Amino acid sequence: MKILETINSPQDLKKVKKENLPTLVLEIREEIINTISKNGGHLASSLGVVDLTVAIHYVFDSPKDKIIWDVGHQAYAHKIITGRREKFKTIRTHNGLSGFPKMEESCHDAFGVGHASTSISAALGFAVSRDLKNEANKIVAIIGDGSMTGGLAFEGLQNAGDLKKDMLVILNDNEMFISQKVGAVAGYFVKLLTAGMARKFEEKVVKTVSRFHGVGASFRKLIKRVKVMLFPGMLFEEMGFTYVGPVQGHNIDNLIVVLENIKDMKGPVLLHVVTKKGKGYFPAENNPIKFHGVGNFNVQTGTTEKEQTVTYTKVFSDTLVKLAQNNGKVVAITAAMPEGTGLDNFAQKFPERYFDVGIAEGHAVTFAAAMAADGLKPVCAIYSTFMQRAIDNIIHDVALQKLPVVFALDRAGLVGEDGGTHHGAFDLSYLNYIPNLIIMSPSDENELQHMLKTSLNSRKPCVIRYPRGEGLGVKLDKSPHVLQIGEGVTLREGEDICFLAIGNHVATCMQAAELLAIKNIKATVVNMRFLKPLDVQLIKKILLKVKKFITVEENSLIGGFGEVVKSILCGSGAIVECLGLPDKFIEHGNLKILRNKYGLTEENIAQKALQMF
Amino acid sequence: MKILETINSPQDLKKVKKENLPTLVLEIREEIINTISKNGGHLASSLGVVDLTVAIHYVFDSPKDKIIWDVGHQAYAHKIITGRREKFKTIRTHNGLSGFPKMEESCHDAFGVGHASTSISAALGFAVSRDLKNEANKIVAIIGDGSMTGGLAFEGLQNAGDLKKDMLVILNDNEMFISQKVGAVAGYFVKLLTAGMARKFEEKVVKTVSRFHGVGASFRKLIKRVKVMLFPGMLFEEMGFTYVGPVQGHNIDNLIVVLENIKDMKGPVLLHVVTKKGKGYFPAENNPIKFHGVGNFNVQTGTTEKEQTVTYTKVFSDTLVKLAQNNGKVVAITAAMPEGTGLDNFAQKFPERYFDVGIAEGHAVTFAAAMAADGLKPVCAIYSTFMQRAIDNIIHDVALQKLPVVFALDRAGLVGEDGGTHHGAFDLSYLNYIPNLIIMSPSDENELQHMLKTSLNSRKPCVIRYPRGEGLGVKLDKSPHVLQIGEGVTLREGEDICFLAIGNHVATCMQAAELLAIKNIKATVVNMRFLKPLDVQLIKKILLKVKKFITVEENSLIGGFGEVVKSILCGSGAIVECLGLPDKFIEHGNLKILRNKYGLTEENIAQKALQMF
Repeated sequence: MKILETINSPQDLKKVKKENLPTLVLEIREEIINTISKNGGHLASSLGVVDLTVAIHYVFDSPKDKIIWDVGHQAYAHKIITGRREKFKTIRTHNGLSGFPKMEESCHDAFGVGHASTSISAALGFAVSRDLKNEANKIVAIIGDGSMTGGLAFEGLQNAGDLKKDMLVILNDNEMFISQKVGAVAGYFVKLLTAGMARKFEEKVVKTVSRFHGVGASFRKLIKRVKVMLFPGMLFEEMGFTYVGPVQGHNIDNLIVVLENIKDMKGPVLLHVVTKKGKGYFPAENNPIKFHGVGNFNVQTGTTEKEQTVTYTKVFSDTLVKLAQNNGKVVAITAAMPEGTGLDNFAQKFPERYFDVGIAEGHAVTFAAAMAADGLKPVCAIYSTFMQRAIDNIIHDVALQKLPVVFALDRAGLVGEDGGTHHGAFDLSYLNYIPNLIIMSPSDENELQHMLKTSLNSRKPCVIRYPRGEGLGVKLDKSPHVLQIGEGVTLREGEDICFLAIGNHVATCMQAAELLAIKNIKATVVNMRFLKPLDVQLIKKILLKVKKFITVEENSLIGGFGEVVKSILCGSGAIVECLGLPDKFIEHGNLKILRNKYGLTEENIAQKALQMF
Repeated sequence: MKILETINSPQDLKKVKKENLPTLVLEIREEIINTISKNGGHLASSLGVVDLTVAIHYVFDSPKDKIIWDVGHQAYAHKIITGRREKFKTIRTHNGLSGFPKMEESCHDAFGVGHASTSISAALGFAVSRDLKNEANKIVAIIGDGSMTGGLAFEGLQNAGDLKKDMLVILNDNEMFISQKVGAVAGYFVKLLTAGMARKFEEKVVKTVSRFHGVGASFRKLIKRVKVMLFPGMLFEEMGFTYVGPVQGHNIDNLIVVLENIKDMKGPVLLHVVTKKGKGYFPAENNPIKFHGVGNFNVQTGTTEKEQTVTYTKVFSDTLVKLAQNNGKVVAITAAMPEGTGLDNFAQKFPERYFDVGIAEGHAVTFAAAMAADGLKPVCAIYSTFMQRAIDNIIHDVALQKLPVVFALDRAGLVGEDGGTHHGAFDLSYLNYIPNLIIMSPSDENELQHMLKTSLNSRKPCVIRYPRGEGLGVKLDKSPHVLQIGEGVTLREGEDICFLAIGNHVATCMQAAELLAIKNIKATVVNMRFLKPLDVQLIKKILLKVKKFITVEENSLIGGFGEVVKSILCGSGAIVECLGLPDKFIEHGNLKILRNKYGLTEENIAQKALQMF
């Protein structure tokens, strides 16, 4: 029998003999690899922290002690250990376990997460609360070096350094955040590991000291010892943390000793652990970028299925390169997502015009704003859900100053298995009220290329929101052309009902119209293209003939496209129904399941139309 | 003739002999003090950087060189020097100069601003752009130590350290951000200045070294010298900046020498300048908090007029203290705005339950979320405009997890003289689409106290938005009571028209109803109280008798209260007009002027109603 089969809680784990823990770690890795090969998921980062996770639960006492994960996609081992071993095979499936920590799911998930850099702030909140309540539990945050580049982590660090509460922050330094290393902080860790930093320090000391005294070899030797004591983690020491490390993250005995030693230290402590992404699965160790977030794959070979159809991301990527070839002013910015956004292609072709700023969406936007103010044409590619981090930068730095930044919002609408923290459910709502913005969404991948060209030509701040995954498989025009800003297109005419759609549901509406045609109901279908400016004239023209409207969008109904249409048609005598996402956080699950559940398939839409007769 | 009268551009400034600059500085201070005593404004911070501003424009060459201010409320001397001397007397008045740098206003305002921590990101954008265009201008960002606590500044610093572009960041260390010093970074500067840091370093070195060798007094002396060379600015050095300083900020000769010396240095440079807020005006030096943002005052005595009526802020402040007296779980969080939000009162009474996290709105919210997760009752008081920085934290950390954080959004709606960057014009729109939130707005200061109690009792995430400044002067109930969540109140009944209002315009609607009564038009007036959940039943009940509706709110009409009402009444046969803020950034100016211009006075509202007959 496997040791893992005896583990149904952290208490069970504590009963395992220390010498058997390495075996348990292997079993957990196997479980993760097998399940994720079927369900897809964040493999590489979860494999990297199995030893660390086991060590934490061996030494600390969850749920009394609070274990707080940053981003949370590395918490698979944590889920397996904390009573969810049996259910683990359901991870990321509809009604199954979430791919991220979730308070509702388990008392061991002290704080839910999905976005980066929240863990230190959260840990500090728990620490303050504990002390006010005179309780004595421990608090542990685990944060990757990538998440550490986010401004929120810095805000948390400095407040924690100021308040001096007992808490442990474990820096999981995997020398790799999502893609390549960027940013001074990331660079700092690299320097630490390569000892370059220590060398520089040594040189500086020796050089300075030499000015005052003649010093020989023995002093140099002395300094060398001092620097090791002083240097690693000076950044954190300066912020008020006690720094411990770096510690090798795949030696479980050693991890347990270190954690036991620092468990009762006073004040904020930073433990620097070095791990390897993908640890224990060769294909993932070799290609952690591919195995960061992965679909199902063959465990033996590590091969994944190729996507059959071209994705929206690919069309964005290719078009941007094409347009940048003829325009030296085009620059591209990503917040640590070159592969996900498709900017890796641009980076290869135009390295000097490509900027990966780290997990720092706010900075990405303000940085882009200044480049636009100086005459460049920045394209800022950020997922819809992560752009929630930079709304003030869009308002205050871009829109207020009417600066022509192009925002490419990938993963708009439902994203599927990543669930509630990752759906791009709100962007139309969080953008529409911002003055001076142009907001558009393509009905297919071909229109996306035209919208990118339109945006770059507009000399105005523009947003293009497009969905995750494959396009419709339509033929791409040879070259992108400029669309008329604010103009919708009537794709089909019929006087019984009118579908007004934006983005990927234009096609669904066309199919719904076909279904209605069978029942002799004649439908107009409009591809609105632009939420802002909205083609009010076109809607009013249609209103002369049609009195029933259905709007369709993959965005929250509140503050979205449908609500705007209703407010325009209020008082006109028209009947308007809106289809879109309801006022709740949408769960995770396969896109087909979710779209069917939330009324966004052609059948649902046709059904809704029939109810109006 | 004053030297200042000869200065109409930075070029004119360069013609002034160095020995006359101190006189010019005095004249500029006098101009600022006199004007702000009449117009109100950010006096203390602007007085603090007059020498620095003159030195920058003496050494650098604006507009070719880009001078980028952080927050921008300290840029008065900059405005006076850069061709706006004559217009300076109009500052902060409607159609006059803005209180902040504004690209539209002058080519010398390289990048507009109002919120904190954007300058480094912007400077880096200009630096990248310059290099791509093979130009040779200089770039200077000036940022206060307070702004340096914001995560965005950290994101900018680290990206700048990584890209190694030539740019100068001047850290204006005034030992004071808005109120008292908080945060590890702020603490770091204090330590620098008090040499406490250096002492700690010395002890550490000596202690460590002692372990290996017996060291005597001479080594201690040596270390003392080393530490001065090594220590100040290690934080910045580690991030890739060359650190210079600290430099005294009120010695203009010296400032010019230093700036000349570092002007042509390669890579990112951080110059640490120490200034005094309020410099040169004794009442402001003595009480920089009072003179941070001030109304008109008597120049001789420094006395300001007392507000006659109680403010919303005061009622919030008093009520919170009252409720916290009986509930030890209530904690309060501010992002460096204790006086502005009224939490200074709470801080005095309950220091251990009060948290000033620095200019770090994102952290404030996530920190509060964790405290709520652990059973506390956090009240997070942040201005409406600054909460734009923390929307993702509200979505991802609070609302998704249904955590009972109470958000007190002061300065919602128009704020007057601070203008476009500071109006709370968007909060109803940026909040309404967020699932699980309760959103309310009091019709007067008495209702505010009840809403605070209602929120703390609700066990749900709640937002209370209330306006800047004085309440209506209504009598306050002796103690706050709990309101029915989601219930609106009909204040007056009439069948000709119905006013649906939320927040401070309920009273305006009551007055408008009086005006209509004179013309024999009978109006219903509803105080909606809650935007979410909205009292749809009440609206539908009224619809049985009334067919004309006017909604009134001091928020953007897009995504706001009116749009929701229109979407509810769409298809009902009702005619709905919405009054609120138009789809543009509202300019600065006196509140009365702005409300009249944008149709939010009782006369405007009555007029609108008459047009519907």
